[in-house]
Amino acid sequence: MDTFPIYCGGEFIETDEILEVTNPYTGKSFARTFNAGSAELEKAIKSAESVRVTLQDLPSFSKYDILMELANGLASDKQHFAEILSLESGKPIRYAIGEIDRSIQCFRVAAEESRRLPRESMSLDWTPAGKGKEGWVKYFPVGIVAGISPFNFPMNLAVHKIAPAIAAGCPIILKPSSSTPLSVLLLSRLIDKTALPKGAVSILPMNRQIGNQLVTDERISLLSFTGSPVVGWNMKKNAGHKKVVLELGGNAGVIISSSANIEDAVNKCVYGSFAYSGQVCIHTQRIYIHKDVFHSFINQFAAKTNALVKGDPLNSSTDISVMIDEANARRVELWVQEAIEEGASLICGGKRDGGYYEPTVITGTNIGMKVCCEEIFGPVVVVEQIDNFQQGIERVNEGCFGLQAGVFTDSLQEMNDAFNNLEVGGVIINDVPTFRVDHMPYGGIRESGLGREGIRYAILDMMEPRILVKNS
Amino acid sequence: MDTFPIYCGGEFIETDEILEVTNPYTGKSFARTFNAGSAELEKAIKSAESVRVTLQDLPSFSKYDILMELANGLASDKQHFAEILSLESGKPIRYAIGEIDRSIQCFRVAAEESRRLPRESMSLDWTPAGKGKEGWVKYFPVGIVAGISPFNFPMNLAVHKIAPAIAAGCPIILKPSSSTPLSVLLLSRLIDKTALPKGAVSILPMNRQIGNQLVTDERISLLSFTGSPVVGWNMKKNAGHKKVVLELGGNAGVIISSSANIEDAVNKCVYGSFAYSGQVCIHTQRIYIHKDVFHSFINQFAAKTNALVKGDPLNSSTDISVMIDEANARRVELWVQEAIEEGASLICGGKRDGGYYEPTVITGTNIGMKVCCEEIFGPVVVVEQIDNFQQGIERVNEGCFGLQAGVFTDSLQEMNDAFNNLEVGGVIINDVPTFRVDHMPYGGIRESGLGREGIRYAILDMMEPRILVKNS
Amino acid sequence: MDTFPIYCGGEFIETDEILEVTNPYTGKSFARTFNAGSAELEKAIKSAESVRVTLQDLPSFSKYDILMELANGLASDKQHFAEILSLESGKPIRYAIGEIDRSIQCFRVAAEESRRLPRESMSLDWTPAGKGKEGWVKYFPVGIVAGISPFNFPMNLAVHKIAPAIAAGCPIILKPSSSTPLSVLLLSRLIDKTALPKGAVSILPMNRQIGNQLVTDERISLLSFTGSPVVGWNMKKNAGHKKVVLELGGNAGVIISSSANIEDAVNKCVYGSFAYSGQVCIHTQRIYIHKDVFHSFINQFAAKTNALVKGDPLNSSTDISVMIDEANARRVELWVQEAIEEGASLICGGKRDGGYYEPTVITGTNIGMKVCCEEIFGPVVVVEQIDNFQQGIERVNEGCFGLQAGVFTDSLQEMNDAFNNLEVGGVIINDVPTFRVDHMPYGGIRESGLGREGIRYAILDMMEPRILVKNS
Amino acid sequence: MDTFPIYCGGEFIETDEILEVTNPYTGKSFARTFNAGSAELEKAIKSAESVRVTLQDLPSFSKYDILMELANGLASDKQHFAEILSLESGKPIRYAIGEIDRSIQCFRVAAEESRRLPRESMSLDWTPAGKGKEGWVKYFPVGIVAGISPFNFPMNLAVHKIAPAIAAGCPIILKPSSSTPLSVLLLSRLIDKTALPKGAVSILPMNRQIGNQLVTDERISLLSFTGSPVVGWNMKKNAGHKKVVLELGGNAGVIISSSANIEDAVNKCVYGSFAYSGQVCIHTQRIYIHKDVFHSFINQFAAKTNALVKGDPLNSSTDISVMIDEANARRVELWVQEAIEEGASLICGGKRDGGYYEPTVITGTNIGMKVCCEEIFGPVVVVEQIDNFQQGIERVNEGCFGLQAGVFTDSLQEMNDAFNNLEVGGVIINDVPTFRVDHMPYGGIRESGLGREGIRYAILDMMEPRILVKNS
Repeated sequence: MDTFPIYCGGEFIETDEILEVTNPYTGKSFARTFNAGSAELEKAIKSAESVRVTLQDLPSFSKYDILMELANGLASDKQHFAEILSLESGKPIRYAIGEIDRSIQCFRVAAEESRRLPRESMSLDWTPAGKGKEGWVKYFPVGIVAGISPFNFPMNLAVHKIAPAIAAGCPIILKPSSSTPLSVLLLSRLIDKTALPKGAVSILPMNRQIGNQLVTDERISLLSFTGSPVVGWNMKKNAGHKKVVLELGGNAGVIISSSANIEDAVNKCVYGSFAYSGQVCIHTQRIYIHKDVFHSFINQFAAKTNALVKGDPLNSSTDISVMIDEANARRVELWVQEAIEEGASLICGGKRDGGYYEPTVITGTNIGMKVCCEEIFGPVVVVEQIDNFQQGIERVNEGCFGLQAGVFTDSLQEMNDAFNNLEVGGVIINDVPTFRVDHMPYGGIRESGLGREGIRYAILDMMEPRILVKNS
Repeated sequence: MDTFPIYCGGEFIETDEILEVTNPYTGKSFARTFNAGSAELEKAIKSAESVRVTLQDLPSFSKYDILMELANGLASDKQHFAEILSLESGKPIRYAIGEIDRSIQCFRVAAEESRRLPRESMSLDWTPAGKGKEGWVKYFPVGIVAGISPFNFPMNLAVHKIAPAIAAGCPIILKPSSSTPLSVLLLSRLIDKTALPKGAVSILPMNRQIGNQLVTDERISLLSFTGSPVVGWNMKKNAGHKKVVLELGGNAGVIISSSANIEDAVNKCVYGSFAYSGQVCIHTQRIYIHKDVFHSFINQFAAKTNALVKGDPLNSSTDISVMIDEANARRVELWVQEAIEEGASLICGGKRDGGYYEPTVITGTNIGMKVCCEEIFGPVVVVEQIDNFQQGIERVNEGCFGLQAGVFTDSLQEMNDAFNNLEVGGVIINDVPTFRVDHMPYGGIRESGLGREGIRYAILDMMEPRILVKNS
Repeated sequence: MDTFPIYCGGEFIETDEILEVTNPYTGKSFARTFNAGSAELEKAIKSAESVRVTLQDLPSFSKYDILMELANGLASDKQHFAEILSLESGKPIRYAIGEIDRSIQCFRVAAEESRRLPRESMSLDWTPAGKGKEGWVKYFPVGIVAGISPFNFPMNLAVHKIAPAIAAGCPIILKPSSSTPLSVLLLSRLIDKTALPKGAVSILPMNRQIGNQLVTDERISLLSFTGSPVVGWNMKKNAGHKKVVLELGGNAGVIISSSANIEDAVNKCVYGSFAYSGQVCIHTQRIYIHKDVFHSFINQFAAKTNALVKGDPLNSSTDISVMIDEANARRVELWVQEAIEEGASLICGGKRDGGYYEPTVITGTNIGMKVCCEEIFGPVVVVEQIDNFQQGIERVNEGCFGLQAGVFTDSLQEMNDAFNNLEVGGVIINDVPTFRVDHMPYGGIRESGLGREGIRYAILDMMEPRILVKNS
Repeated sequence: MDTFPIYCGGEFIETDEILEVTNPYTGKSFARTFNAGSAELEKAIKSAESVRVTLQDLPSFSKYDILMELANGLASDKQHFAEILSLESGKPIRYAIGEIDRSIQCFRVAAEESRRLPRESMSLDWTPAGKGKEGWVKYFPVGIVAGISPFNFPMNLAVHKIAPAIAAGCPIILKPSSSTPLSVLLLSRLIDKTALPKGAVSILPMNRQIGNQLVTDERISLLSFTGSPVVGWNMKKNAGHKKVVLELGGNAGVIISSSANIEDAVNKCVYGSFAYSGQVCIHTQRIYIHKDVFHSFINQFAAKTNALVKGDPLNSSTDISVMIDEANARRVELWVQEAIEEGASLICGGKRDGGYYEPTVITGTNIGMKVCCEEIFGPVVVVEQIDNFQQGIERVNEGCFGLQAGVFTDSLQEMNDAFNNLEVGGVIINDVPTFRVDHMPYGGIRESGLGREGIRYAILDMMEPRILVKNS
C-alpha cells in the first residue's frame, strides 16, 4: 500500500495520525497518508510567514517559470495523476483525465496572469485639491492564504487556490478533503522541485478540529473555501479580520425554450445531470421545459439516461459509477423517496445498490421538496413543464441559491430576459449550468457563495491595492 | 442680414472674401460670413503653436470646467442654435434641436473623458532583462489638429472634433462646410468666453484651395476629415507625416429577418431612409427583406413613407424638406432614372421639385446601379426580397463600403452570423444603421473610412503614448 | 429652534424619540431631529425592497440626471449647508465649505460613473471545452445597502455611501452620527425632489441598539461602515451573509527625508496635524524626520503651530476650535499626560479648556504609548528623529494600523522603498497622509479596514458580477 | 554551400534570382537563397487571401498551440538559429543568442495575447436615444499584412510582425532584409510544421522594385515597416488605402544627472553605444552629462570603451566586430571626419579597418553635425557637458527624431521633468534608450515613426473594431 507523506513547510513528513484512503468503488483502502496536527499546522504557518516577503518580491519571470513547470509536470505524468484521482474519488477515468487537463490549463493561465497583476493609474487633478498629482495603484499580496478544497474535484479545485496564490505571491496552506487527499499530495512533489521557496505551499490533510484554525487564526489573511453552504457560512462568522471567499453549491436550473435545439439540449443535460454522479457544485438539478417541446425532450432524455454505462471508474467506457460513499447514496435515496411520497413521480432510475445510485429523473415536484430546494449532490434531476419562458425564470429563481443557470433558446429577447432576471452568478446560453472553463469568473450569489474564482479573479482576491500619490 | 465674423487665433475677424449663406428652403441668402485666406490660416496655425504647451499642461479640472461651460452654454440657448442650423442646412427644426442636444452631450462626455485620459501600467520583468523595472504609459497631445466637417450635421460633426481636441489638450483649426458655417461660428462665441487660451480653437471657413493646406502643412499633426470618400482618400495620399482619420460615407444596408418585429422595423426604416432627406452618412440606403415578410413590410413601409409631412424646415411638424441644394436633388433624380432605365421599378416617390426630392422607394435593383453601389445621400431607399438570412448578409456586403448595417431579428444565431460576417464598423440589432449615440465607437472599414470617432476614440487618436520605464 | 424630520421610505417623519443637536462651540442645543425606532427602520427596509427592481432597471441617463441635480442643488445652497455642518460639528467654516465642495464633486463623479458601470468581456475558447463560446460580464446591484457614517465629515462621508448607491442602483439606508445628523438630513430634502423612486434612500438617525439591526438583518446585502476600529471589526462578526466594507482609522505617519523641501513639508504637516482638531481618519499623528533636517523642521513647525488662529467655527479666519465634545478633549488630555509621564516631552500645546484642546506637539515617544499606537483623533502630533530613511519606514509601520502614510522626498529610490514597504493603503509622496481626493481608491489594510471607497471603488463593492456565456 | 528555399504560400520554392548571403566578418558568401519575383508575390497574396477567413475563425486554443510550438521549436534549436543569425549579420554570438531568446519570448507573449484580443463593452443609454441598448465591441483581423524587416535584428524584428499577425488572425507576407534573410527562412521551416493553414505566412526576400508592391497593392490592408526614416515616410505616401506602421530610427540621447549612479550609468552607456556596433534603432548616440560628474563619467567611459573585445562574431568573448558592410563603415568614418573638421574632438576610437569601425567617442559637437542630427547607425557616441538638467532635456530634444531617451537620476523632480518634456516614445529612467523588452509599447514620434510595436500593440494595429449594438 502506497504511503503519501504530507507537505508541510517545504518538507515531506509523516505524523502519528494515519489517514487511510478508500477506493469508493471497491470499498477498500488502497493508500495512506496523514493528518496534520497542531504542531504541523504551526510549522506550516511559521514557514509561510518566513517566506512572505520573498514571495512578494519574486519577479514575474520566476513565477511564470514555476507555474509553467507545474503545468508541464502534470502534462508529462497525466495518466498517473488521473488514476490516483479516479481511485480516491470514484470519478470515471475519462473525467479524471479531463480534470488533470483543466489543472494544467489553470497553471498556464496563472503563469500568464502573474505577468499581468492588476495595476491602475489615474489623474488626481479633478479638483484644484489634486493639482499636479497623479495616482499609481499596485496590488500587493494579501498575506497568508488558507485554502480548503472538497472531494469532488480533488485536484482542480485545489489548483484553483494554489495556482493563483503563487501568481499573487501569497504563501498558501491547503487542506484537501479527507476523502481525496492523494492527487494534490502527488502534485506537492512537483511543487517541491520548483524554485518556489520552501514553505510557500503546504498541503495538509487535517481533521475538522485542527482545520478550524485555518478559519480563526489571525495570522492568515484570506480564507478561500470550496464546499457545502452550511459549513461555509459558518466559517464567515468565525473568520475574524480575514477576508473570506466562499464557493458553495446550489440547485442549478435549466430552461428549455420552444426555440431550443432539442437534441443538443438533451445531450448536454444528460451530461450536466449525471457526470460524476451529480457530485458537482453546478450539477444540473432542475430542468424546466416549455410545454411545446416537453414530451419530445423527456422521451429523448430518458432514453439517453438509460443508455449511460455503469461500471468501474478506471474503465474508460464508464459513464457513471459509485458515489463518494454509501452514506451519500443513502441520503439521495431518502430525498427521492420523500419527494415521491409528497407526490412526485419517477421517470427513470430511483434505485440504490450500495454506494451506487441510479441516474434518476423525477417530475411533479415543488420547491418545498429537498430534491428541489436543497443541493442534492447526486445523480438526480427534476424535469418540469412550463407554460412560457417567463415562468421558467421564476421557477429557476425559486429557493435560496444562485450559482449558475442554463438556458436553451434561439431568441434574443429570451436571452436578455434570462440574463437580466436570473439571480445567479452565471447564465449559460445553449448549455447546461454545469459549464465552466477555468479562466471565467465563477461563483454564486445568495446562499451559493461570496466572491469569484477563475484564475484572474482569485488572484484579485488575494491582493490588496496600494496607491502611490505623486507629483505628475 | 446678420454677419458672422470668423474665429481666428482667438479673435473674431472679417476678411475680404465674403461668404454668403443661403437658406436652401427659400433659396435666398440670409447671412454672411467670410473665407479665411492664407494670412488668416497662418495666423491660426501660429496661434495654435503658441498655446500647444499651455494646453498640454492644463489640469483636468480646467478642461472639465471649460467643456461643461460649453455644454451649458448650448443648453441655455438651444432654440437659437437650432434655428440657425435649420436655416443654413434646410434641416427640419425637430432634427436640428436633436442635433444641438447631441452636441451638448458631446461636450459633457468630453468633460468626463478629460479626467480619464488613457493611461497604462505594466510590469516589465517578464524576462530577466527587465528585472526590477516597470512601465507607466501616459498619453500626450499629438499636436495641432485640423478638422474638416461637412454640411449635413453642421454643429455636431464639428463638435465631434472640437470637444475631443479640448479634452486631449490639442489646439484645433476647424474648417466647416462652406454651405453651413454659421452654427459652429455661433459656438465659437461661447468658446471665446471660456478660460481656454486664445488660439486653442480657430473656426475658419475656407475655399478648397486654402483648405488644402490643412492636409499638407507639416506643422499639423493630425487631420480629421468627415466627408465624401473620394475627397477623403485623396487627402490621405497628400497628408505627409501626419495621422489621418477619415469618416466617410457608405451605402448602408438593413436585413429584415422573418423573426423580426415588422411594425418596429418599418417605423425605424422610414426614419433611417428619409430623415434629413437621407443626407446622412449612415442613411438607410438598402433594405433586404425575408420573402415571408416582404409584402407585409413593403405595404406598411410605403404607406408610412407617403404619410411623411413635407414643408418648411422651421415648422416643427415638418418631416422632410428640400435637399442642401438643387444640384444634389438633380443628381439623385438622375441616379433613380438610370436605375429605372436599367430595370428597377418605383414603389413610391421619384419626383423632384427644385431642391426637393420626394421620399422614394425602389425595387428590382442590382449592385451595378449607382443607387446601390454609390452613396446616394438623398431620400431614396432600395428594397429587395431575400430567400434567407445568409443571402441578406451577402447582399449587404456588396459594394465597396462598410460603415454600419442594421439587422432586425430575434434569432441569436442570426445575430451572431450578422456580427461575424457583415463587413462594417457597426452592426445594429433591431435598429437601422442610422443609429448612433455620440460616445460609441463609430466609423467604417473598406472605403468608408479609417479610424473611429466617438468622444473617447477621437481623443485616443489625438494623443500619443509615452512610456516611462523606471525601477519598481 | 429648527426641527429636522427624518427621511424614511420617501417620507419626512417625526418620531417620539427626540434627538437634540448641540453646537459643540457654544455647548447649547440649536436644533432637533428624531431617532428612528424599529417601526421606522422596518418601513425603510420594506420601501427599499419595494424599489429594488425599479432601481436596477433605471437607465443611466436617469441616474446621471438625478446625481447631477443633487450636485447642482448642493452648489446653489452651499453656504447654508456649510453653516449647518459647522454648527453641528464645530468644524471651522472654511473646512465646512470645503467639505460641501467635495460632496458636490462626489455626486458629479458618481453621475459620470453611473454611465461606466463595470463590464467585462472575454473569449472562452482557450481550450476545446469552450469552443465557440464567449463571456460577457455585467454587474448588477447587490441589493439593499446599509451605510453608517461618522461625525467628523457629516456630509461627505455620508455622500460617499449615498452617491455610489444611486449610481449602482442600490437602495440605501443611512444612519448618520447622532452628533451630526443635520446636514445629511438637509440633503435628503434635495434627494426627495429628484426623480429617484421613494424609498431608494432613507436617512435615519438611530440609537445604537436599533442601529445594530443594520448589521444583522439578512435583507440587507452590504454594510458600509465608517467609524472606529473596535466597533467596525465587531460588526464584521455579526454581519451574517452580507458583505462588509470597513473604513476605520489609524495612526498615520509621515517620513521627512533629508532631500525634502522642508518649508513645503512644514506647511502641509501643520494642516495634516491640526485641521479639524485632528478629528480625521487620516490625521497626521506621527512625523519621523531625518536627523539632518530635524531641528530646522521642528523650529518652523512649532512656530507655525503656535500661529494657528483659535476661535468660533463660524468665523472664516478660524483655524482651530473645540473638539466634538468635552469627553473627547479629556481623553486626548489624558493620553498626552500618560505619554509625558512615560518619558515624552512637550514641544508646544498640551492644555485643555473645556472642549478645546491646544494644538500639541510631543517628542520622545515610543510605540507603546497610546499617542503612538492608538488613533488619537485629536490635535496632537508626535515628532521624532530618525537616522536614515529605512528607519522611517520601520517606525511608520509600527503598530497595528495601515491607512495612509506621507513621505517627503526627492529621491526616486526612497519613493520606491516607501511604496514597496509601507504597509498601508496609500503612500502620499510630498504630502501628508491626510491627502484625499474623492475619486481615488481610499482605505486601509491591517486594523484600518477592509475594502476601498472612492466613488468607482464603492460602486464596485455595491455590485455583483454576472457572466453571460453565449455562442460567439 | 547551404541553400535556403523561400517560403511562398505554404511551399518551399526556389526561383531564378539567386541571392548570395555574405558573412560580413569574412566577406565571403556562405549560403544562398532566392528573390521572389512577381509571380511568387502574386502566389503569396492569393494564398493569403484564400486563408483569410479560416484564420479569422481560428479558436484561440489553436492560435495558442501554434505560437507555443514556435516558441518551443526555437528554444530547442537555439544555438543553430543563433549561429546562422551571427553568420549573416556579423552580430556577436552572445547577442545573437539573446536575440533568439527574445524571439522565443515574443511567440510566448503572442500566444498569451491571442487569448486576450481586445474587446470592449459599454452601456449606450447615456441619453434617451440609446435607451435599452448596449454595445459590445470585438476586434476582427484587418486583412493581409505586409511586413518589411531590417538587417540589424534579422529574426526578432521579423518575429515582431509574424507573431502578432498569427495572434490577430491575419495572413502575413514578410520581406526580410536582403543581407540577412536566412534566420527567418529557417524559422519558416518551423512555421510550416504547425497547424497554421498554408499561405498564412510567406517569407519572401525581394528586390526593392518587387518589394514596392507590398506598399502599393490594395489587397494588402496593413504595411508594417521597420527600417530607415527616408524609406519609411516615402512608403506612407504611396500606401493607398492601407494602414501604415513605421518603426524608424533616431539619434537617441541620454542625460546623466549629478544625482546619478555613475558607475552604473557608464556600464549601461557602453552597452548602449557599442552593442552590435551601434547598428540598433535605439543606439545610444548622444550623452549629455552634468558638469559636476562629467570628468568622472568620461574617464570611466573611455576606459571601458577601450576594453571592449574585438573579434570574430562567432567567438563568445567578442564584444564588437565588423559592421554589416564596408560601405556603412565608410559612411560612419566620413561623418566622424566631418564632425572633427567642424570642430569636434575625438576622445577615443575613430579608425576604420575594412568593415570594422572602432568604438568611437567624440565631444565638442553641435546639432548641425550629422553625428548628432542624423541616425549614425554605427559605433559612435557623442558626449557633451551640460550646466543643469533642464539643458539636458533641451539638448536631447534637438533634431527631428523622437524614439527613446535615457535619464540617469535619483531625483523625482528630474524624472517628472524628463517624462513630461522629452519628445520621445519612451523615457528610460536609470538605463539607456537602448533598453527594450518585447511586450512594452515601443515606437517613436516625430520623424522616428508612426504607431507602436510590442506584441499587444502590434496586434491592436492588425485588428479593426466592430461594434454590436443590441438590446440590453
